[in-house]
Amino acid sequence: MINFHPTGNCPIRDVLSRLGDKWSMLVLITLNANGTMRFSDIHKSIEDVSQRMLTVTLRTLEADGLVERKIYAEVPPRVEYHLTEVGRSLIPHIEALVGWALDNMTVILENRKVNQ
Amino acid sequence: MINFHPTGNCPIRDVLSRLGDKWSMLVLITLNANGTMRFSDIHKSIEDVSQRMLTVTLRTLEADGLVERKIYAEVPPRVEYHLTEVGRSLIPHIEALVGWALDNMTVILENRKVNQ
Repeated sequence: MINFHPTGNCPIRDVLSRLGDKWSMLVLITLNANGTMRFSDIHKSIEDVSQRMLTVTLRTLEADGLVERKIYAEVPPRVEYHLTEVGRSLIPHIEALVGWALDNMTVILENRKVNQ
Repeated sequence: MINFHPTGNCPIRDVLSRLGDKWSMLVLITLNANGTMRFSDIHKSIEDVSQRMLTVTLRTLEADGLVERKIYAEVPPRVEYHLTEVGRSLIPHIEALVGWALDNMTVILENRKVNQ
């Protein structure tokens, strides 16, 4: 039997926890689709994320090295975000999940109706 | 610019929200690895999930048609869970994510140290 241990350095659990936040996936998809973006553009693109949650999500992705933040010394300072190489390498897997969702959504929605 | 609309029937957002729950992914992986399992075995396998959270997760996966629950009329009643065909079709994508995690975890952990 496979066990997922609550403590220790388990990469499976670790990545699932981080990606197990829908905002992370949405930010990665948005940045991949649009290239370099300002905070306000990301916020406009993912309408219902709060400013605070988007800030936290971007900081986490930046700390993990999936997203890079660039600050331009202008007045007011311009801050832009883009995917790193590691971030881009995750995109095909997220797209595969999205493709699976598109293929199976009809069945899943039907199941929900029956099981309600 | 791609927009993820907060309302309406968006399958991308929908699947990311559902999968954007690490317990769902862990339950699916566990059931795939072990086949048919009782509630208590799933709980033992994913040690730090609460009984309530595991119940909710299994109900959601069942409502979506990814997991099937079978009740055997014994005393006490035996309840077993296994993946449906739709549930199994999601496994390769989750495994791809896990593979990506294993390939990139060293880099990500290094990034976190530098960015702390």
